Amino acid sequence: MQITRINLEPPYLIYLGDVPDLHHAKTGAGVAYWRPENCVGQIRLPDCPVDLGLPEMSVQDAKDAGVKTVIVGVAPKGGQIPANWIPQLAELAGAGFDIAAGLHTKLSDTEDLVTSANKSGAKLIDVRMPPPNLPVANGRPRTGKRILMVGTDCAVGKKYSALALHRELDRRGIKATFRATGQTGIMIAGEGLPIDSVVADFISGAAEVLSPDNDNDHWDVIEGQGSLLNPSYAGVSLGLLHGSQPDAVVLCHDVQRVETEGVSGDYPIPELDEVIDDTLRMAHRTNAKCFCAGVSVNTSSLSDFERDNYLSKLQSELGLPCVDPLATGMSPIANFLLKYAS
Amino acid sequence: MQITRINLEPPYLIYLGDVPDLHHAKTGAGVAYWRPENCVGQIRLPDCPVDLGLPEMSVQDAKDAGVKTVIVGVAPKGGQIPANWIPQLAELAGAGFDIAAGLHTKLSDTEDLVTSANKSGAKLIDVRMPPPNLPVANGRPRTGKRILMVGTDCAVGKKYSALALHRELDRRGIKATFRATGQTGIMIAGEGLPIDSVVADFISGAAEVLSPDNDNDHWDVIEGQGSLLNPSYAGVSLGLLHGSQPDAVVLCHDVQRVETEGVSGDYPIPELDEVIDDTLRMAHRTNAKCFCAGVSVNTSSLSDFERDNYLSKLQSELGLPCVDPLATGMSPIANFLLKYAS
Repeated sequence: MQITRINLEPPYLIYLGDVPDLHHAKTGAGVAYWRPENCVGQIRLPDCPVDLGLPEMSVQDAKDAGVKTVIVGVAPKGGQIPANWIPQLAELAGAGFDIAAGLHTKLSDTEDLVTSANKSGAKLIDVRMPPPNLPVANGRPRTGKRILMVGTDCAVGKKYSALALHRELDRRGIKATFRATGQTGIMIAGEGLPIDSVVADFISGAAEVLSPDNDNDHWDVIEGQGSLLNPSYAGVSLGLLHGSQPDAVVLCHDVQRVETEGVSGDYPIPELDEVIDDTLRMAHRTNAKCFCAGVSVNTSSLSDFERDNYLSKLQSELGLPCVDPLATGMSPIANFLLKYAS
Repeated sequence: MQITRINLEPPYLIYLGDVPDLHHAKTGAGVAYWRPENCVGQIRLPDCPVDLGLPEMSVQDAKDAGVKTVIVGVAPKGGQIPANWIPQLAELAGAGFDIAAGLHTKLSDTEDLVTSANKSGAKLIDVRMPPPNLPVANGRPRTGKRILMVGTDCAVGKKYSALALHRELDRRGIKATFRATGQTGIMIAGEGLPIDSVVADFISGAAEVLSPDNDNDHWDVIEGQGSLLNPSYAGVSLGLLHGSQPDAVVLCHDVQRVETEGVSGDYPIPELDEVIDDTLRMAHRTNAKCFCAGVSVNTSSLSDFERDNYLSKLQSELGLPCVDPLATGMSPIANFLLKYAS
């Protein structure tokens, strides 16, 4: 029985349709920002105001440029594929390009796309759909090293922190792979597993598949999902934590987040030292050596002065490197990680 | 959007096929033992050696007895429906009885059954299949009281302990409902949600649906799944814990279980006070008042003398009632629960 991960083949053409603004094209913008080497162009409908600054391409241009995969880099309202996009997407599928999307409507449920793809042999890849044959986790310790982003909540910068840390390790010549667990991350990495979409029994098994045995000096930098504190998604977070068997975690936080978002009831974010302590207690079940390598905080709501004060104070309280991944960078966390990982 | 739970209508006819021994008929035996008032008969193939002691029925007998649902109370090898069972099951479906099963092969993928059921209007109910439209958990505190079984591992007696505690509360005239989270539990309760089969994002949402708002003096006694200590299934267990918002937990254990079963690597069962402490830390996220109402231990491997010693020692160490649900009964845990639940 073959175990598979989602796998997208570069180079990419980013599809933008006719979304009204950059906010609706976050996935495409993320892929263009983090993986410029994989993006050879963009294709849009005539009235599309969004421009990622990539070369504009026709279907023929894309063929000439050797494009392998069209990334639907947009989230249209409601998550459906708008009817006016389908002819262009069908033309691209008919030209033999794989199409990858993370929409609510599956590509494979869209008849015109399936017909065109069947004729050309192109693949339609729904990155929200987990692959078949995922195993139940077996808990076997794996070779290689792993660091997992954990969060005080959803949407506090786990993906961004993972990508920034991966880039920092890569810059230093350290063997490292970014491991994507959500749809945008998968589009950026070109592979991964949508961990929140697997059947509950297989969460940790999927995490084990995602970061297999590796060289002893290789780091998997694993994108987190949800939060142990979030009463909607904590099961996903714990399954990912156990299956990842991380040697270290980075706690990701947004300085403005004082309570869990999107829920009813009283769910304040506790003190960060308590969050770290609870996380490590759970992490130690599958890796007794796991430690916290730092705290990565989105401080974009603060002035430079306020940010410096906040991060210095936090750092002295926790005794850990505390950074803003955008404003101050991940270098202190990389230093701490490499110093203390045995 | 209607939110549904699986729902089986009594009275039941227990289907046994031709399984070789009682071990393969555990589900049927469980339903007959815990819900004798719902079981009017059994039906078997000519050579079946297993007998649950229920009245033997033909299809006509079952019609006359007013049977509503046929419970496939067996687990054939490999989880497939044996070909020689299908004619009899199709006859039962054709006679208008709903058929409920928890096999790997879905009833609804078995053509002869679907044809017969479509003709008669009978339902084919796969209890491993979660209902559609499960919501993401919202974390809203609910009215009524809840107690959840948690375990040091899978298969340590969580279902049995929940059913025994429910029976004890019922005996005392306390309003209580057993809430089933696994397939055998669902067959026994006649309703429930297979919590380990839902998509990861919806684990806690399913748990919220399973135990809705209720009278202030009503107890939901919730069957547990997996264990926070089990590196394969802890995500399921935490999602269920958070979504259940329990006022109390009972820790279930098997005295012979010294390490997590079915995994590779070093996964010893910690001291029980540590397990209780970690469980309550996580439980407090959705119910700050949650406490441990006792420990329910399968001590069937011990002599009476050894059992008394073991339970007395444990009880004095933990300061909690420690029982064997079969040998000593759940009464001390019910006493403790009702005394300390506010």
